[in-house]
Amino acid sequence: MATQYVYFFGAGRAEGHGKGKDELGGKGAGLAEMTAAGLPVPPGFTLSTRACRDYIAGGNKLPAEVDAQMAVALGRLEELQHQRLGDPTDPLLVSVRSGAKFSMPGMMDTILNLGLNDKSVEGLARASGNHRFAYDSYRRLIQMFGNVVLEMKKELFEHLFDAQKKKSKAKLDTDLDAAALKAVVGEYQKLIQKHTGRPFPQDPKEQLTMARDAVFRSWNNPRAKHYRGMNNIPDDLGTAVNVQAMVFGNLDERSGTGVGFTRNPATGEKEFYGEFLMNAQGEDVVAGIRTPVPIAQLHDVMPEVFDQLKEITSRLEKHYRDIQDFEFTIQRSKLYMLQTRNGKRTGKAALKIAVDMVKEGLITTDEALLRVEPAQLDQLLHKVLSEDKQGVKAAKGKERLKLIATGLPASPGAAVGRVVFTADDAVTQAKKGPVVLVRGETVPDDIHGMEVAAGILTSRGGMTSHAAVVARGMGICCVSGAGALTVEAEKHHLSYDGKLVKEGDWLSLDGGNGRVFLGEALTEDPDTASGDFGTFMAWVDPVRRLGVRANADIPRDAEVARRYGAEGIGLCRTEHMFFAPERLPHMQAMILARTEKDRRKALAKLLPMQRKDFAGLFRVMDGFPVIIRTLDPPLHEFLPRHDDLRVEIALMKAKKAPKKKIDEKEALLNRVGELHEANPMLGHRGCRLGITYPEITEIQARAILEAAVLVTKEGKKVIPEIMIPLVGSKAELANQKKIVQDVAAKVFEEQGLKVRYLVGTMIEIPRAALMADDIATEAEFFSFGTNDLTQTTLGMSRDDAVKFLEPYKKAGILKSDPFAVLDQEGVGQLVKMATERGRKTRPTLEVGICGEHGGEPSSVMFCHRAGLNYVSCSPYRVPIARLAAAQAAVMEKSGERSQRTA
Amino acid sequence: MATQYVYFFGAGRAEGHGKGKDELGGKGAGLAEMTAAGLPVPPGFTLSTRACRDYIAGGNKLPAEVDAQMAVALGRLEELQHQRLGDPTDPLLVSVRSGAKFSMPGMMDTILNLGLNDKSVEGLARASGNHRFAYDSYRRLIQMFGNVVLEMKKELFEHLFDAQKKKSKAKLDTDLDAAALKAVVGEYQKLIQKHTGRPFPQDPKEQLTMARDAVFRSWNNPRAKHYRGMNNIPDDLGTAVNVQAMVFGNLDERSGTGVGFTRNPATGEKEFYGEFLMNAQGEDVVAGIRTPVPIAQLHDVMPEVFDQLKEITSRLEKHYRDIQDFEFTIQRSKLYMLQTRNGKRTGKAALKIAVDMVKEGLITTDEALLRVEPAQLDQLLHKVLSEDKQGVKAAKGKERLKLIATGLPASPGAAVGRVVFTADDAVTQAKKGPVVLVRGETVPDDIHGMEVAAGILTSRGGMTSHAAVVARGMGICCVSGAGALTVEAEKHHLSYDGKLVKEGDWLSLDGGNGRVFLGEALTEDPDTASGDFGTFMAWVDPVRRLGVRANADIPRDAEVARRYGAEGIGLCRTEHMFFAPERLPHMQAMILARTEKDRRKALAKLLPMQRKDFAGLFRVMDGFPVIIRTLDPPLHEFLPRHDDLRVEIALMKAKKAPKKKIDEKEALLNRVGELHEANPMLGHRGCRLGITYPEITEIQARAILEAAVLVTKEGKKVIPEIMIPLVGSKAELANQKKIVQDVAAKVFEEQGLKVRYLVGTMIEIPRAALMADDIATEAEFFSFGTNDLTQTTLGMSRDDAVKFLEPYKKAGILKSDPFAVLDQEGVGQLVKMATERGRKTRPTLEVGICGEHGGEPSSVMFCHRAGLNYVSCSPYRVPIARLAAAQAAVMEKSGERSQRTA
Repeated sequence: MATQYVYFFGAGRAEGHGKGKDELGGKGAGLAEMTAAGLPVPPGFTLSTRACRDYIAGGNKLPAEVDAQMAVALGRLEELQHQRLGDPTDPLLVSVRSGAKFSMPGMMDTILNLGLNDKSVEGLARASGNHRFAYDSYRRLIQMFGNVVLEMKKELFEHLFDAQKKKSKAKLDTDLDAAALKAVVGEYQKLIQKHTGRPFPQDPKEQLTMARDAVFRSWNNPRAKHYRGMNNIPDDLGTAVNVQAMVFGNLDERSGTGVGFTRNPATGEKEFYGEFLMNAQGEDVVAGIRTPVPIAQLHDVMPEVFDQLKEITSRLEKHYRDIQDFEFTIQRSKLYMLQTRNGKRTGKAALKIAVDMVKEGLITTDEALLRVEPAQLDQLLHKVLSEDKQGVKAAKGKERLKLIATGLPASPGAAVGRVVFTADDAVTQAKKGPVVLVRGETVPDDIHGMEVAAGILTSRGGMTSHAAVVARGMGICCVSGAGALTVEAEKHHLSYDGKLVKEGDWLSLDGGNGRVFLGEALTEDPDTASGDFGTFMAWVDPVRRLGVRANADIPRDAEVARRYGAEGIGLCRTEHMFFAPERLPHMQAMILARTEKDRRKALAKLLPMQRKDFAGLFRVMDGFPVIIRTLDPPLHEFLPRHDDLRVEIALMKAKKAPKKKIDEKEALLNRVGELHEANPMLGHRGCRLGITYPEITEIQARAILEAAVLVTKEGKKVIPEIMIPLVGSKAELANQKKIVQDVAAKVFEEQGLKVRYLVGTMIEIPRAALMADDIATEAEFFSFGTNDLTQTTLGMSRDDAVKFLEPYKKAGILKSDPFAVLDQEGVGQLVKMATERGRKTRPTLEVGICGEHGGEPSSVMFCHRAGLNYVSCSPYRVPIARLAAAQAAVMEKSGERSQRTA
Repeated sequence: MATQYVYFFGAGRAEGHGKGKDELGGKGAGLAEMTAAGLPVPPGFTLSTRACRDYIAGGNKLPAEVDAQMAVALGRLEELQHQRLGDPTDPLLVSVRSGAKFSMPGMMDTILNLGLNDKSVEGLARASGNHRFAYDSYRRLIQMFGNVVLEMKKELFEHLFDAQKKKSKAKLDTDLDAAALKAVVGEYQKLIQKHTGRPFPQDPKEQLTMARDAVFRSWNNPRAKHYRGMNNIPDDLGTAVNVQAMVFGNLDERSGTGVGFTRNPATGEKEFYGEFLMNAQGEDVVAGIRTPVPIAQLHDVMPEVFDQLKEITSRLEKHYRDIQDFEFTIQRSKLYMLQTRNGKRTGKAALKIAVDMVKEGLITTDEALLRVEPAQLDQLLHKVLSEDKQGVKAAKGKERLKLIATGLPASPGAAVGRVVFTADDAVTQAKKGPVVLVRGETVPDDIHGMEVAAGILTSRGGMTSHAAVVARGMGICCVSGAGALTVEAEKHHLSYDGKLVKEGDWLSLDGGNGRVFLGEALTEDPDTASGDFGTFMAWVDPVRRLGVRANADIPRDAEVARRYGAEGIGLCRTEHMFFAPERLPHMQAMILARTEKDRRKALAKLLPMQRKDFAGLFRVMDGFPVIIRTLDPPLHEFLPRHDDLRVEIALMKAKKAPKKKIDEKEALLNRVGELHEANPMLGHRGCRLGITYPEITEIQARAILEAAVLVTKEGKKVIPEIMIPLVGSKAELANQKKIVQDVAAKVFEEQGLKVRYLVGTMIEIPRAALMADDIATEAEFFSFGTNDLTQTTLGMSRDDAVKFLEPYKKAGILKSDPFAVLDQEGVGQLVKMATERGRKTRPTLEVGICGEHGGEPSSVMFCHRAGLNYVSCSPYRVPIARLAAAQAAVMEKSGERSQRTA
């Protein structure tokens, strides 16, 4: 049998129905499906992707049978429409559109109104009773044909069109009348003759074959190739071509056009929602010249059409089992459905629709889980800026807001407050009202100010800068890296675009998309209390295989984590505890100590404080594991900056300060200088601290294990896991594990009670992943620190990458920020390798991830596929991670692979 | 047949000869071999490693047949020696020593003089006619037995011994007479009774079995286990035990002891070399109480013994086919050979001996290649400090030198000069005489001072710090990281141990081992001119498979590289060219430019300079490839330090400097601040610069290709390879390659000549290795930048690691500095992975290494095994790399694996 290249659809039947996207492309498959479902779709036919592949393989030549098959299909189309292509009295017009397997919006070409020529244009004018319409359609055809098929620049045509507008003294395109448009048609035809040496083809069949071939060729145009490269779409798929009868909503007053949703896409309410315009084309709505009216009014204008539309769309929703976003045209009282697709919706609507559809028996709970984007949950968990069509609403009686910068959406939510520039000011001013803390970048010293701020704004730093990580951990809104702003903290102002914002001025931040507004915005509270959220999240946990823990350093955060469903703590950073004002001096004394004895003295002061912290965490996490990491950051983070000290000393000398004071400062400067590092991220930190100063590990292990004994004695179930950071070899871990074990033996002896505990390691440098089999002989668990693992694997400092990440995205070198979305291709290889090698040595090895990626949906799904035991993320991201984990499990069950994977 | 556990040796026959080290251990196999070769070795027997394994497996119990076999062997020994163990008149004494397959020096235990008891000690006294000797031997036996067999602390015995010395008013051990020693023996015996509840065993056979079992047990003592862990020696090998008749050189005036070499180990001259003492034991020589005499004098004292010794040792040399380091004892005119082994030798001697032995027909050239440690060649290529037994010699009429610090041997050679503390001073002072440039650490700005210095000394920084890398490249002696020194450049002095060294004082550096001397040392010139060096190196090249290129940035270095046999340039760092005083301003202008246009203007000034540099390299490397890397370091390296600028501005303000000047400085500060990076190593550098500022790559590509065309036109063969640094993905390389290709097309068009060139990439971040298959679709060559690859894979900054590398080595966590010796276990995995994956995509892929490891022998051998095409190293290391590469090939041929692998 000969190959079928052409598939007809129309009048309730579609040859290609069931052939799928491989052969028909996405659009062609959709048209076939809609037609077969009995929808009033303008009829037409699809040339298969096979035709495209053969065309390219044949050196831009189609097999002979394609023309023959197309002629047959065209005949059927003419018969069905009672019109003929090129008919000088009432011509059939068709559109010619590309449609590949995967959507490639705007990448390939479209030609409308094909079938018009110098004669049939008059027929169209007569048949429609609208000369202007007919000539406007014709000049559009010639323009598209010239550009797409004849590869002439658009500007050439636009130039002629503008000249005519000038001549006719027309302001808008629509001011041109039929005569003027006819003149444009003439000019266009001359242009084509001049440019190509041949006239614009008057034979509609020639138009059609030329247009078809041009669409096939457009598969290999540079922007399509680039798009495919970016999106990992194979180059050898080819595109289908859809030829479809044109319908017009602007033929007369019984014609019209509109768009709608089967449910409210903003709220999720089950209501028929949309708008329309009579005697209009889709683009009239877009151009904004006329204002469309609510769809309910269609009932008054054309009751039968309204009922038919309602019936059809509710059938569509049942058919596709999801909210539909549809386009329709009415041509002389006859309804045509042009397109339907699953509708985009807000997080709130997504949740409501998913829950409602389960109640309606339309979908299963497993399907419902796939209907909400995990990231959308953020909208439900945090305060948001109130918004309407005009934009963000100002608080009552306040001036309109002004967008002054857009930074990175570092921590979700909304914040409205008065500007302060130092952490100390934040503490003072927060007593009087909400404040937004603005810094160039935050440092650990700022933590007391960050805690009391409504929001945090920085001009530098990425998605995983200090400000971002801490804010997410605290659930405080944060916008980072707003580079358009210059923060001058000493001068107590920031500047944008040459203007100043001073301390006390109002700022409003949108942590969901990084917008920074000058002024006081209105906000809306989160909606987790509504029944839908609880219903939905109850479906999540039974499905997922991956555990979800939280990164939490203090009991308050741990409580939030439990409330959001965390099943333990995946990372407690002990260093965060050392920045509290009453502790920092002891920490600094420890660092400045020159002998082990002095160091131990300072550490002894910290011991009871740490023990208290850990006991608090253990109490909250009764029955759940708590992973505590030993001291990780380089010590100089706890001391004043070298820069600042040098300036201070230079000024003291210039002002002839007493020698003794200068000497003291210089001694401190010397120590800070000694601790200075060229690349602190790769320096003396992590287990390297614990190995050079064993007493640090010792005291921390003691605090953890004493707390564990204490809380166990209170009758709670304590599961402590002690995690050694920055390990690159078995020997390092063995060294630290030995210290922990020795301390444990002592503590259990002293306290007369043993508590079971684990010792494990971060896998956060490539060597650890490479040596995982060896390291697992010592490690009882692995936790991927994907922040650092990304930094080292990519050789990219997260603090410094801001400068080139944007240019990289623009150049198409990176698709996303690798510190936000796990680099599955590169870093992912190490995650898989370490998991496999580690489990080979120790099959019971517990493997998790505690980097920022633990709360990012596509990364969570990757962790599921890589076989990890759990992910750990900031408390406010726990619901997101839970949902993503559940989705991964559902997809695995159904054999579907997430579209979100790189 | 029953298992043989005991192997007898003596009187020219050895049962175990040929059994090898597995069964007899290293020492046992050596004794068997020497005995079988007819040497006068004191007879004895070896208990096999099998006995040890069975002992441990049996829960510290030996199979019954071992005792039986040992009794037979002991009987033979007594017969041969005409003495019996425990004989009260003339007792046989034996030593009991461990001896595992692999040498584990000092890890396990030894017992001497076994066979003495309260009765036989008198027999020994009579037989030797020396009471003091007999009782001293006895008290030594008890002390060793107590410590090793009965596991009592050494201090317990030392305490009693010291008490006796006090009592006898003896200053030295030798001041104690027989009576005093007898008293000590009594005290020791009481101690043992008290401690163990049992007396010291008087039955010599019981002594022997107890000692044997203790040696077997010592296989599993903690320090032996630790040593095995460190050296990858399997735990299940077990040790052999050697029981051997004791001989004494201190019985009378016809007895003596000595050591010697078959050739001069310092010069390699073929001369009988050594020293001896009559009526003495080995330890008398060590104690330094008596001065040994040259071995030639033995001829006068005992001519027959001298002749026998000479005959035996020259036979030994022929037997072992290498210079022998031997120990002998004469007991009552009878010569015994105690030990012989291949002698350690200086580089100079190693070379001469290898060449001489080939001439003598003793060894093949392949064997000769293995007889010189590649690192020893350094001693031949560089100036060295003159040294004699008293240490480093001072220059004529100068004071003795004082060792004030030991840093890292960053660049070999010796330097003697007056101290200067700034690069500018170096330039000024170097005109008057040699200078040593002393800095805390060097920065690129210092380069003009480094060029003129005789040597460079820094108090901070590792083996791959800026100072080290640049110095090696220039062939200038450098000691880095001499942490005992505090350099205060502003004050123009350095301090050590509270004392000051001022500008103009003399310092002498030993780059071979990192010693720093105060004072003016005498030096010796290198010896490459001697015929031996040329002869030897001529054997090297035909054997090796691995190519050797050099890292060279300027023609002068390239010439040195060619002279030392480099086959091309593996790395030309273009940035080094930008620090020259006449270029830096243009470079800075380029960096400070705010627009592409301004940037291009500055770059245009640099173009002709770069072209000239490259042309110079191409001319020198006529016919050999030259790899040029595009700009790599972060831009702020070319600007003043942020710290310095801030201090300067603060002072200007304090002194009320004109506002305009302050504003200018502040603008510069701002730009430096913008360029500031938290971790510059992981920041905006490498191809990230070329991607964000394409014009930089463009201008560099143009300079390279214009130079290539120019030199080709001169009739030379130019092979340019353009290398893009810090690539982590195919897209990055594709982006930069496109720029190069576009420039190439233009240049070739303009010049009317095409030159074949390659575009490739560094593999220096883990992601590049992981994605090597993908990257190789674009890359025409790979070059491993193992400096950065080590930094990222280990998460370890080479500048900052100094602080913990030493503690790591001490704790046994690291065996060597991973920046000096390639981490084959970790980083090596990535090197192999990338090579395999890259070649899978592109079988012709050229793969090399240009990190510092390219000149380190064990790393070069690894590169050979990993199948790389070449290594590239600093010019002065080229001979070392050539030899290491040849050795790897020879070992591969002979199936031997380098002992130098990790």
